[in-house]
Amino acid sequence: MIGEKLSSDKLEGQLLPKSLALPIFASDPLSSVAYAPQELLMILLLGGLAFLSFAPWVAAAVVLLLLVVVASYRQLIKAYPSGGGDYEVASKNLGEKAGLIVGSALLVDYVMTVAVSVASGVDNIISAVPELAGLRIELAVFFVVLLAAVNLRGVAESSKAFAIPTYLFITSVFVMIVIGLVRTSLGDPPVAESAAFEVKGEQLSQAAFILLLLRAFSSGCSALTGVEAISNGVPAFRRPKIQNAQRTLVLMGGIAIVLFAGLTTLALIANVHYAENACNLVGFDDCQNQPQRSLIAQIASSVFGAGSIPFFILQAATAAVLLLAANTAFNGFPLLGSVLARDGYAPKALNTRGDRLIFSNGVLILGACAVVILVVYRASVTNLIQLYIIGVFVSFTLGQTGMVRHWLRELKKPKAQTGRIWRSLSINALGASFTAIVLIVVTITKFTHGAWLVFLIMPILFTLMLGVNRYYRDVEKEVEVDPHTTFGSRGDHAVVLIGKMQKPALKALDYAIAARHDSLEAVHISIDDEATDKLERAWREMNIRVPLCVLRSPYREIGYPLVKYIKKHQEANGGEVVTVYLPIYIVGHWWESLLHNHKAWRIRQKLLMQHGVTVALVPWLLDSSDVVYGRRSRPIPGQERRGEPVRPMPRKPLKPANDEAVASAGARANAARPKDPDVERAKTSKVKAKSHR
Amino acid sequence: MIGEKLSSDKLEGQLLPKSLALPIFASDPLSSVAYAPQELLMILLLGGLAFLSFAPWVAAAVVLLLLVVVASYRQLIKAYPSGGGDYEVASKNLGEKAGLIVGSALLVDYVMTVAVSVASGVDNIISAVPELAGLRIELAVFFVVLLAAVNLRGVAESSKAFAIPTYLFITSVFVMIVIGLVRTSLGDPPVAESAAFEVKGEQLSQAAFILLLLRAFSSGCSALTGVEAISNGVPAFRRPKIQNAQRTLVLMGGIAIVLFAGLTTLALIANVHYAENACNLVGFDDCQNQPQRSLIAQIASSVFGAGSIPFFILQAATAAVLLLAANTAFNGFPLLGSVLARDGYAPKALNTRGDRLIFSNGVLILGACAVVILVVYRASVTNLIQLYIIGVFVSFTLGQTGMVRHWLRELKKPKAQTGRIWRSLSINALGASFTAIVLIVVTITKFTHGAWLVFLIMPILFTLMLGVNRYYRDVEKEVEVDPHTTFGSRGDHAVVLIGKMQKPALKALDYAIAARHDSLEAVHISIDDEATDKLERAWREMNIRVPLCVLRSPYREIGYPLVKYIKKHQEANGGEVVTVYLPIYIVGHWWESLLHNHKAWRIRQKLLMQHGVTVALVPWLLDSSDVVYGRRSRPIPGQERRGEPVRPMPRKPLKPANDEAVASAGARANAARPKDPDVERAKTSKVKAKSHR
Repeated sequence: MIGEKLSSDKLEGQLLPKSLALPIFASDPLSSVAYAPQELLMILLLGGLAFLSFAPWVAAAVVLLLLVVVASYRQLIKAYPSGGGDYEVASKNLGEKAGLIVGSALLVDYVMTVAVSVASGVDNIISAVPELAGLRIELAVFFVVLLAAVNLRGVAESSKAFAIPTYLFITSVFVMIVIGLVRTSLGDPPVAESAAFEVKGEQLSQAAFILLLLRAFSSGCSALTGVEAISNGVPAFRRPKIQNAQRTLVLMGGIAIVLFAGLTTLALIANVHYAENACNLVGFDDCQNQPQRSLIAQIASSVFGAGSIPFFILQAATAAVLLLAANTAFNGFPLLGSVLARDGYAPKALNTRGDRLIFSNGVLILGACAVVILVVYRASVTNLIQLYIIGVFVSFTLGQTGMVRHWLRELKKPKAQTGRIWRSLSINALGASFTAIVLIVVTITKFTHGAWLVFLIMPILFTLMLGVNRYYRDVEKEVEVDPHTTFGSRGDHAVVLIGKMQKPALKALDYAIAARHDSLEAVHISIDDEATDKLERAWREMNIRVPLCVLRSPYREIGYPLVKYIKKHQEANGGEVVTVYLPIYIVGHWWESLLHNHKAWRIRQKLLMQHGVTVALVPWLLDSSDVVYGRRSRPIPGQERRGEPVRPMPRKPLKPANDEAVASAGARANAARPKDPDVERAKTSKVKAKSHR
Repeated sequence: MIGEKLSSDKLEGQLLPKSLALPIFASDPLSSVAYAPQELLMILLLGGLAFLSFAPWVAAAVVLLLLVVVASYRQLIKAYPSGGGDYEVASKNLGEKAGLIVGSALLVDYVMTVAVSVASGVDNIISAVPELAGLRIELAVFFVVLLAAVNLRGVAESSKAFAIPTYLFITSVFVMIVIGLVRTSLGDPPVAESAAFEVKGEQLSQAAFILLLLRAFSSGCSALTGVEAISNGVPAFRRPKIQNAQRTLVLMGGIAIVLFAGLTTLALIANVHYAENACNLVGFDDCQNQPQRSLIAQIASSVFGAGSIPFFILQAATAAVLLLAANTAFNGFPLLGSVLARDGYAPKALNTRGDRLIFSNGVLILGACAVVILVVYRASVTNLIQLYIIGVFVSFTLGQTGMVRHWLRELKKPKAQTGRIWRSLSINALGASFTAIVLIVVTITKFTHGAWLVFLIMPILFTLMLGVNRYYRDVEKEVEVDPHTTFGSRGDHAVVLIGKMQKPALKALDYAIAARHDSLEAVHISIDDEATDKLERAWREMNIRVPLCVLRSPYREIGYPLVKYIKKHQEANGGEVVTVYLPIYIVGHWWESLLHNHKAWRIRQKLLMQHGVTVALVPWLLDSSDVVYGRRSRPIPGQERRGEPVRPMPRKPLKPANDEAVASAGARANAARPKDPDVERAKTSKVKAKSHR
């Protein structure tokens, strides 16, 4: 067994207890109550104040939906505890295409989660500090950049610091609801600052009336976003994983319902009037310059008093939990990428654990998309929410439909516990039909308000993923071992490419000698006569007995003459396998690679295009290269959701002192026995460097 | 000799005749007459209409300066015909730092050449089609992107199509000047559309009066930009190179003087009133919305008639020659980069001829900088010209001072032709003092108008280049062969990394067998038990006699267990050199590399960090890889100025059918004699693939 093994106990200890899992996975769904009631009421207000009387019914529908979805996901967790979530369920039960639709929906949704959460977070900051209103977009972009930077640097999601905002948010909103309701029951209901504003309602036909109710419901459904998060994180739970995940899900659902219902009730009690266009509020005079404060901020100031300390605590908690929700997308995005990669729908590199570079790209892509979206939609929650939840409900619907298929299949198995299965089946069928209806409603009500963009991007992602898969399939076929393949190359000629008389070149020569090839020669491509003369002189002076072949390159190219020379050799020697030794630099800083190796890389690529050529890279570690280490122990986005503990990688001892290490190996070199008299000349020659100046 | 040799005659035939060299190198200096007279007169007008009476004197000063600079560069071409220009002269004669100052000045100047030329080109397009006035910035950005795209694609500067706009521009401006002067002598002088406009002049103190004259002169000096282009292009001329280049330079100087003087005279005759702020023109009522037409457009419409065909021809030629001038910067930038790289002040990769990728980066950087500058300065010639010519005159002054040093040194040589040298010396001394004075004037008059930015950026570039040089020097020292280095590694163990039972892995194994190492084993890192079982079964079925060692990797990593295994082997065997065979894919399209090889690359990097490890890359050429060829024959920016003919690269025949090639080599494999009984086991085993399903 290789690798520092963590015992099972130890592994278990690094997994998430429920008390940490709740805030980590629930920050996304819980934070959505910060904007869902506001958007729900806002749409109703389009029809005028009278429409607010429908609010309890619409909110009740959202709560019912939330109940159904939570119940459905309880089933999903039980059946698919591997963390694949809707994507896995859909692709396993409904086939590849359904899985890919879910995949593309989720990719879009991660971007939207970042955008909406950050926009809402900024909105709540502005609600507390209205002076910042002019910097809305700048703040939003700043927070996305900050989140991206934090995730590029590496951050352990399980850190307890991450739990604080969520618990603070839950507690403070809960306290606010209780105080508000108690005050109301005592005959002193809170009154929002916008309570006095009249609203210019539109005259609505009956069809428009129904459509408006449906639109309000659609916007309220944004409260459901993120419910699926726990189903993706089951592997990160402590044992018994399934039960713990299910309990956390139910707990989260309960809290979400309480907060959502409580906030909506309080908003209605306090008469919060939040309009899509602030200037539709009659009485809000400075609507052009003053920001409209968020619903949660208006409730908080009416309950706690404007500018009071609890008000600021609540706003801070709200903003923090929203940013945390955005952070979860930075964790989920690469995780989904790795799942897609594992199944061959995304570049395989995305499935390379521990490759910070890859995850950096994912973080950068997600951040860049979110920034673009935020700038284009001017960081307005109301605008952004139109693009949201399409993806969520696509994945809900397909996931639940997949679950129905799953249970139907289970039923057919021998010894199936039909009673239980029927129960699960009906729950998921209910979930599937509810979410399907909502998806239709959402599509109808939001398509022309901006959601068309999602319907444009999803097929593009879908096609790309399918294309990647087909590409891999073709390659797989191309490299498949078939009955007619016969290998059996022969020959063992080696060429060492010598540029200048420098240590890296001599090391390459040394290694080539150590490998005792049948024949060995050093090749120098001359692009500068003076340098070539100097090299030849040094070669003689140092008494190196490997022959040095000089090739002139009139066009100052290196790869082409070398390839031509090798080809000639192969033609003369019946297609021998030729090993070309290339010395290359290993550097420490990214910018150093801008200054090195490009030529070597080009030569390598040229050589690799030839048949019968192997390129042997002989590294020369520059002093700076030991800086490379020490960067590995930072966690990678999505690592914890996958159930992988964040462990410090064992640091390898690396001594930068190449010379000593090689030299000590050299001390034993004399023991090497000559093997073949034919190649004696090359084999026994020993490179000993003398001062050659 | 390797490489298809072009005979000297043939090479000569591909060099530039004077008739082509003139338009190619002169588009930059000649095009500057399209804005120089305008900017000169505009600054004078700041003082009011009366100041125009100083215009002939200021213009005469510019012409005198042009004469002196042309004469100076005739000397420079003679002394330094290698195409290094001012940079070479300054660094050879005044030392490294002076050379770097010139280098950074020129880098800045290339960006400004693109920006100013494109801005002026767009200005002239708008002057012909005023409806486009609202799209000024968009058009400018479009043209920069277009030029970058054309240069990324590769374009032969020597194409005759490039000569047409320059000749058309020269001819049509010349015809316009002649017609205008003839009409004036016949008593029918042209009258510009702005002739009737009064100008609100400022009240000036005497100091301000002189400063204004100096500012006008500074702006007029923009006519001198690009004069140095020919000195950078001497290698591209036909023999006798020096004489041809000198004659072309003189011819260009003559044409520039005629055009500049002619346009200024006509502008004064036609009373063109061009103001820095259009709304300072009394009588130009719609100054907010209507664009002020360029000086050349106003002259053209007064001479040929507004909206006449010759007017449009002239405007088109002007715009075309200006865009051509911008294109020359796209050629000069990478050329300068390669010269700096050759001397170790820029990444060495920039000196890799034929590497399209590198030049692409140069083109992209230049284009991006120009776009940023154009957007920030709103594509206004008047704003941009403030940043221009600082760099030009820095490089003029240092170049000419370097020439003075050069001649002084020449004088000291025995058998020096003192007469001739003294003549050259005095010409260059005159040039140096003139350009130094102008540099001081330009700095004083432009610093607060935006030129400070140039004085900020130049030191940054200077420091970067010096830093790169010091880095290379340190590395050079680190890899220098010193008396204490002793090499002499021993051992010859080989490891073939096997992922799946696929052709690339078998090919790597086959090559490793062919190389007949002392000992050979296949290593598989198991991250998936099922896949490992499948591999082990296939291994047995195919009767491969190389032992397969399976390493379990609990953390799904590949590099680390492999490195650990190799280290253990080295510890047990006294630090043997271990060759690790890695199969890698060679692909055809850039996007394919997103889908492959990342894992292999990571493993390779990890292995290369180890002492005593060589990585042997065994390529597997995917079918798509033969697409790579056929892209090489396109010219690279700066190729022709360097005097390198654009030649089609010999196409290498590449058969994608790997199997046959390897298989045919395999047919001869049986002849391979066993070498060492100890390693018989591995050496004689033959990989023969059978259907293993």
